[in-house]
Amino acid sequence: MKASEEARSIGNTLLDSLYAKGLKHIFGIPGDYVLSMDKLIEQHQIQYINGTSENSSGYMADAYARLTGLGAVCITYGVGISIVNAVSQAYVESSPIVVISGAPGMGEYANGQKLHHLFNSRHLPGVREHFQLDIFRKMTVDQVVLDDPATAHDLIERALSRCLAEKKPVYIEIPRDRVLLPISHPSKAKPKVHEHKDYKSANCFQMIAKILNQCERPVIWAGHEIQRYGVAKELLAFAEKYHIPIVSSLMGKTVISERHPLFAGVYQGAMSLPSVQEFVEQCDCMLQLGLLGTDVETGIFTANIQHEIKIRALTEEIIIGKHHIDKLPFIPFMQGLAKLELNSPFKHSFPAKKDFKKQNFTAKKGNKISLSKTFECIDKYLTADHIVITDIGDCLFGAADLTLEQDSFISCAYFASLGFGVPGAVGAQLAAPSRRVIGIIGDGAFQFTCLELSTALRYQLDPIIILLNNHGYGTERPLLEGKYNDIQEWNYSEMPKFLGGGIGLRTSTEDEFESAFTQALSRRGQFHLIEVPLDKFDFSPALKRLGSLAKH
Amino acid sequence: MKASEEARSIGNTLLDSLYAKGLKHIFGIPGDYVLSMDKLIEQHQIQYINGTSENSSGYMADAYARLTGLGAVCITYGVGISIVNAVSQAYVESSPIVVISGAPGMGEYANGQKLHHLFNSRHLPGVREHFQLDIFRKMTVDQVVLDDPATAHDLIERALSRCLAEKKPVYIEIPRDRVLLPISHPSKAKPKVHEHKDYKSANCFQMIAKILNQCERPVIWAGHEIQRYGVAKELLAFAEKYHIPIVSSLMGKTVISERHPLFAGVYQGAMSLPSVQEFVEQCDCMLQLGLLGTDVETGIFTANIQHEIKIRALTEEIIIGKHHIDKLPFIPFMQGLAKLELNSPFKHSFPAKKDFKKQNFTAKKGNKISLSKTFECIDKYLTADHIVITDIGDCLFGAADLTLEQDSFISCAYFASLGFGVPGAVGAQLAAPSRRVIGIIGDGAFQFTCLELSTALRYQLDPIIILLNNHGYGTERPLLEGKYNDIQEWNYSEMPKFLGGGIGLRTSTEDEFESAFTQALSRRGQFHLIEVPLDKFDFSPALKRLGSLAKH
Repeated sequence: MKASEEARSIGNTLLDSLYAKGLKHIFGIPGDYVLSMDKLIEQHQIQYINGTSENSSGYMADAYARLTGLGAVCITYGVGISIVNAVSQAYVESSPIVVISGAPGMGEYANGQKLHHLFNSRHLPGVREHFQLDIFRKMTVDQVVLDDPATAHDLIERALSRCLAEKKPVYIEIPRDRVLLPISHPSKAKPKVHEHKDYKSANCFQMIAKILNQCERPVIWAGHEIQRYGVAKELLAFAEKYHIPIVSSLMGKTVISERHPLFAGVYQGAMSLPSVQEFVEQCDCMLQLGLLGTDVETGIFTANIQHEIKIRALTEEIIIGKHHIDKLPFIPFMQGLAKLELNSPFKHSFPAKKDFKKQNFTAKKGNKISLSKTFECIDKYLTADHIVITDIGDCLFGAADLTLEQDSFISCAYFASLGFGVPGAVGAQLAAPSRRVIGIIGDGAFQFTCLELSTALRYQLDPIIILLNNHGYGTERPLLEGKYNDIQEWNYSEMPKFLGGGIGLRTSTEDEFESAFTQALSRRGQFHLIEVPLDKFDFSPALKRLGSLAKH
Repeated sequence: MKASEEARSIGNTLLDSLYAKGLKHIFGIPGDYVLSMDKLIEQHQIQYINGTSENSSGYMADAYARLTGLGAVCITYGVGISIVNAVSQAYVESSPIVVISGAPGMGEYANGQKLHHLFNSRHLPGVREHFQLDIFRKMTVDQVVLDDPATAHDLIERALSRCLAEKKPVYIEIPRDRVLLPISHPSKAKPKVHEHKDYKSANCFQMIAKILNQCERPVIWAGHEIQRYGVAKELLAFAEKYHIPIVSSLMGKTVISERHPLFAGVYQGAMSLPSVQEFVEQCDCMLQLGLLGTDVETGIFTANIQHEIKIRALTEEIIIGKHHIDKLPFIPFMQGLAKLELNSPFKHSFPAKKDFKKQNFTAKKGNKISLSKTFECIDKYLTADHIVITDIGDCLFGAADLTLEQDSFISCAYFASLGFGVPGAVGAQLAAPSRRVIGIIGDGAFQFTCLELSTALRYQLDPIIILLNNHGYGTERPLLEGKYNDIQEWNYSEMPKFLGGGIGLRTSTEDEFESAFTQALSRRGQFHLIEVPLDKFDFSPALKRLGSLAKH
């Protein structure tokens, strides 16, 4: 497909640039304002993946981006705004996705005609509608309209560079009569590389050294930005040199391998395993790195370490002691930390790891399965081949106790979009075909977006979906119970018959679940949907630990 | 539940006001920021209807509002923005829905905590997040935050009055710690009634009379605003007095009964039945009333009557001859029209109605069913008991030829949201329980939102869904064909087994379809899903009439 540089169309220039940055797939929903772009994708090395809705396609792109470093989704104009929730989540959770939208042709705007999918029925002739762009302005870091062959190349490079540098969504709109126009001035200028200057930050690291040299039991609390910005190596270089234990947040689970000798557990206040909570809360210096510290991450603000947080660094701010450090971005900060010189390594002991080591689960034949036994059984079989993705609710809280390798856990624990799990599992399986994705999803979430299993079927993707069926919005019941927390009970294991493929299993005992799960692990090529019927009030150990704090 | 006025909470004041305005149901998805509101609804005379997603719940509320005059949907904060597409559609198609959103408590904002579902991770302490409200500002005519017991009552009345007067969505946000606070100053002031003043519009009607007295063959082209603003009576009074034939737009289909002696068909340019097109385009004066004139309404701008449009009146503008009439709203305009005095009635003849009269369909046993035969068969059995709702695509174009009573057709022919049909059918069935809703849906659209049939099941709603399966995005194929127009082929008739109820039927011949459809019509209490497998390129007569114009 690669033609000479002179002949490239605006559409192909965009696709070539995405491909050059490593993108292999674009998720999308076709529509008449975007068909010519869809056609170009079909003819390109990048593969087009049809989703079953815009929002769900956005979730697939989000999970894909978290694993590969870049995702993209292609929508039509107007009704494409259905995707805003997925894009907002990608923004707040730092997932670099490119939203490509078709639009009416510039010629169609020329005489002020009233077009379908448009918001304003009264256009001034020749004036482009801004409705959709104005909405995406709120949840993307850059917005460009490729309506001019002279500027398209530079605008594409600008938007994609920002997406990759800031790990946030960008929005690219292409009027349909511009897609095939050749770019007239392919810029010779290389896109700006965001190089990290030699920041005058010596003082900042001196302050850190001073703080650390005065303490005995420091702990690092690592968050998801470590993974997004690719600085796990720097984190480990620092921690290993001085023997500083690392706990992760829930959002940051698996920023380092959970089998690493310095890993001490997932810390989330009162929701932590007791030994982890006790260990962390005895520290005399907390380094919070790449971590937002939301309600969900702090066990609904039960993390009892406010006074010990002496160093806090993430993209939005760096605070050392009482000093805000300006103009030092997160990546050079982490690079500086890796080179920090302290007086000597630390020597404090770790919690006994029994709490979060494999539970040596043994199925009791005929025993009705519980939520905690489900997680124990899953944990027993996890290897470096597996990626676990969860939806929102107790499937997320329960999964905190699983033991996983680096970069093997995906959740949306901050924006908390119910329904992320199934599309996320499909997107993740596409991103990492040689590994196996295990999606852990509650029934409430499943009913939102389960149809994306159709996409798994279409493209022979084979995630394993473990459907924790607690008969409604389980985590809301302790908050305020009512019929609105109930959902319609489906015959979930019949779903493959409806969709025309995949394996559906219903397991009600410990041995049935173990058998179904190991069978699913051993067979590739089709999605597996394993329903685990649970009691309405069977909560995960983590949620039970939070106990009465969940009430308000 | 009615307590003394003094003790009413903010939440109940809102519900009482909605109930007083005729609302019987609120659609919604629960979430922790809105649970206390959900609880109040559960305890109120208004019934809470759980949907399977926010956007789909918005579609249900939209269809409900089109039939009853008011709809409402209750969402949680942040992730609730998933509903924006449905709200945008309700805006541009003038459907009065109230979006009620929960929100973090004012107390939670107090110290700048980072909360799940929120967009901004850095709040200034005490400052409410505006992210969601700013988005809804773009697609609602009023936005209020009920954070103050002293202003809540008046803000509720203001928002609901605007919703009802302007027939557009409004947005009401309630911080969760304000829901149960008693309103402190229940306003004694009656809400403003939008009375229509005696507009100084005599001149406008003199101009209309002059134009009409000089012509011989006037035709009224009536659009959806006639139904939304409840002025069909005025339209008919005027048309009947002077014997002026009425055609409707596609959006305005059934603003009057299609069996009314003055009704002359659905006019949509080259997509019209030939006799209707010929009749309309010989007119010497067109009155365009309550009609936007979008691409879809004008047969992609093939309506050949530009010079004959001498009178154009709708909410956004009134133009008589070359004069823009200011300050005369649409309702008083229609009231004035009803009282207009002309010299004498008109006498021009109508098209022979055979084109759009019942086709006397007779099923040929064993004959593979086609799209046009499907519509003929449906038309044969339509009575005043039926409401037809369609999705977007050829199901909509084909349905134009059906013959229906007044206010019996629902479509989203302007904003054109793929997936509106199934949720719309469920919402419509709830709004009009004594009638029977027939949803006509393409397979592409069905895959977007079919799960809303679960809601039909839960609340014993029994729409009949006719699934026109042409194996993908059929109306896109003539535009630009590609694999992106294909979708995964499901075993649609297995869906009831998956959901646990309803009747699923697959019909491939004319007699099978007639038998399945009449069976469905005769049995109430469960939804019926009738799949009609069609050829990929079997287009409706209307789309064929548009012919090569569909290409671009």
